[in-house]
Amino acid sequence: MSYEPIFTPPTADEIETRRDRVRALMEQQGLDYYVATCPDNVFYLTNFANYVHERPFILVLPRTGTPRFVVPKLEVPHVLSRRVGELDIVPYREFPAPAGETWIDSFTPLFGGGGAVGVESICPLQVYEATPGDRRRTDVVDDARMVKTPYEIGRIVYACERVSETHAELMAMAKPGLMAADASGALSRGMSGRLLQDVPTANLLATSIFVLFQPPSVSHDPHNFTNIFMEMEEGGPHVSLINCRLNGYGAEIERTFFLGSVPEAAKRPFETMMEARYLALELTRPGANMGEVDARVNAVFEKAGYGDNLLHRTSHSIGVTGHEAPFLAEGYDREIEPSMFYTIEPGVYLEGIGGFRHSDTIMTTEDGNRILTKAPDDLGGLTLPLP
Amino acid sequence: MSYEPIFTPPTADEIETRRDRVRALMEQQGLDYYVATCPDNVFYLTNFANYVHERPFILVLPRTGTPRFVVPKLEVPHVLSRRVGELDIVPYREFPAPAGETWIDSFTPLFGGGGAVGVESICPLQVYEATPGDRRRTDVVDDARMVKTPYEIGRIVYACERVSETHAELMAMAKPGLMAADASGALSRGMSGRLLQDVPTANLLATSIFVLFQPPSVSHDPHNFTNIFMEMEEGGPHVSLINCRLNGYGAEIERTFFLGSVPEAAKRPFETMMEARYLALELTRPGANMGEVDARVNAVFEKAGYGDNLLHRTSHSIGVTGHEAPFLAEGYDREIEPSMFYTIEPGVYLEGIGGFRHSDTIMTTEDGNRILTKAPDDLGGLTLPLP
Repeated sequence: MSYEPIFTPPTADEIETRRDRVRALMEQQGLDYYVATCPDNVFYLTNFANYVHERPFILVLPRTGTPRFVVPKLEVPHVLSRRVGELDIVPYREFPAPAGETWIDSFTPLFGGGGAVGVESICPLQVYEATPGDRRRTDVVDDARMVKTPYEIGRIVYACERVSETHAELMAMAKPGLMAADASGALSRGMSGRLLQDVPTANLLATSIFVLFQPPSVSHDPHNFTNIFMEMEEGGPHVSLINCRLNGYGAEIERTFFLGSVPEAAKRPFETMMEARYLALELTRPGANMGEVDARVNAVFEKAGYGDNLLHRTSHSIGVTGHEAPFLAEGYDREIEPSMFYTIEPGVYLEGIGGFRHSDTIMTTEDGNRILTKAPDDLGGLTLPLP
Repeated sequence: MSYEPIFTPPTADEIETRRDRVRALMEQQGLDYYVATCPDNVFYLTNFANYVHERPFILVLPRTGTPRFVVPKLEVPHVLSRRVGELDIVPYREFPAPAGETWIDSFTPLFGGGGAVGVESICPLQVYEATPGDRRRTDVVDDARMVKTPYEIGRIVYACERVSETHAELMAMAKPGLMAADASGALSRGMSGRLLQDVPTANLLATSIFVLFQPPSVSHDPHNFTNIFMEMEEGGPHVSLINCRLNGYGAEIERTFFLGSVPEAAKRPFETMMEARYLALELTRPGANMGEVDARVNAVFEKAGYGDNLLHRTSHSIGVTGHEAPFLAEGYDREIEPSMFYTIEPGVYLEGIGGFRHSDTIMTTEDGNRILTKAPDDLGGLTLPLP
């Protein structure tokens, strides 16, 4: 297995490999057609990225033969400029449009005699209602995306290199008084500049960059980014957050860090988080049950008396987005396989003390996993000197 | 009617006014409950903005009483920090979660005995399936959003001032060789900087800024932004595009412009576009039928022989987004009312010559409309001197 970064677009063969995976799942489930509107699923199967506005983009996959893509006429040149692999473009006039020229008029005739039609869990109701045949909610494209191809691994490796590099830059600029807005602006621009230097044709519709930190007064509330003028402070715990999707592939790295010194009250939660982290890294391997991994990791916190201080699951996955299925989450009864990606990020949140969470992007191998993001993870390496 | 810019958050009374509008539509349609998952509809009714990830956020509005908001536990402090108006928060553990602690377990019991439940056209299938009662697809929140409150008008006026200012800056820097990526980067940063200076608590989850131009070699293909290294050229037509959502309210301005001189072949399409533009500005007034306005505007192009060169409708609306219903589009059978917003942007696209489109954000008044964005619109004002 190569871990060399890749930043060229996918070949038609790569796209065909993915479609074959989806077709195999359709075969297993007895589906004649599959309807995909999720932009990430469409991107996975066509290399074309769109924003969701009111004009629908709908990919219809027959079990055999060329996929059909219902798109607004306005977007046809855009689709042709990005799409990889065979694709029958089925344009419609506009949204809204006169009777006979609407998206439904283009979409509904694509199903031949009907048959069994799979639709996504997030399929918009209006598309569901316009879909003929025996409709069944099933996420075969999301399922196919869970195990990555060698090409995808190279793309994610590239994204992991960029977030690791940016994280090192954030650590180098860390000091009391550094404002989140300033750090975020400078580092986001740096990462997008580097991407465009490496890949001048990078697709910005498939790119998003999130770089931020939370100081100790905020880090106990891990989704609080309300005040972007918040500043780093002496002590900690601060939590850094870097999550990106770079030209269609994601990566994430986060660290709990301190400036100058580690408050006494932060030591035990940090150690407990590290124990949970190492257990998660040990357990995340082929054959393990995803829900079970989360339960065992949560038990570390519960045993330490932090059972009421958990706010989220151990992991989400990464692929054509920075945040997707599968999950290491209690109640999620699936088996881990090789070539899956996970963020490993157990965390504990204590009001008045702060938040404790590292996150790394890892890939499962035949018999374990490999960490693809790089930064120190111990208190020594994460207690930064004051200027 | 005041056209003073407003940039303070909505009051609880303002939010209640909006909910009353939705309740009135529910009453008319005999709905006991309404289910909203569209982040823009949720924002309109709560002032809380979220990104769509896999963790559902679902607002349940009973016909009377306090709305209930199903949210992941992780996001409760975030919701509390932004929400305006009464709201019962109904948290769930996580996505995925063990049986008994999922979002469905929090959501399904909210409907009492069932009754008639309205759901959005874009309701995700999994939410639709989990909704009890007699479900009916109807877009009452989208409908309520179409006519703006005086507060909303002030917010959109603020956004119109910012896009007009930024457009003037783009015109001031225009010259052959100016790269789209450079212009876009500098002007987007300028606009977000100005926003944060005016509104330090601005919600970046409700903010998006799009500033770009297309040179003559690209402007015939109005959604082609693939090459952000494209440069301005002597001549034209270039098309500028500025569309934003600033802290929750949108605006748009676009112009067809030239550097140094106007190619002979560009004159007739420019004039035709201007004729269509002025007809659209004349027709867009209370009492007119939206589809009819578009048909009459398209007829101007058809009469000039450009019937095959139309790619989009005359207008979309603006509000809590930069791009929303209602539309001036053939086949859209609705009546224009006072205090609606429209982009007026008829366009014509000629391969080998270029694209011709201005866009302004306008508001309908009691008996006509008022243009809220500002830039020259004639060939004299839009033929910029070479350096």
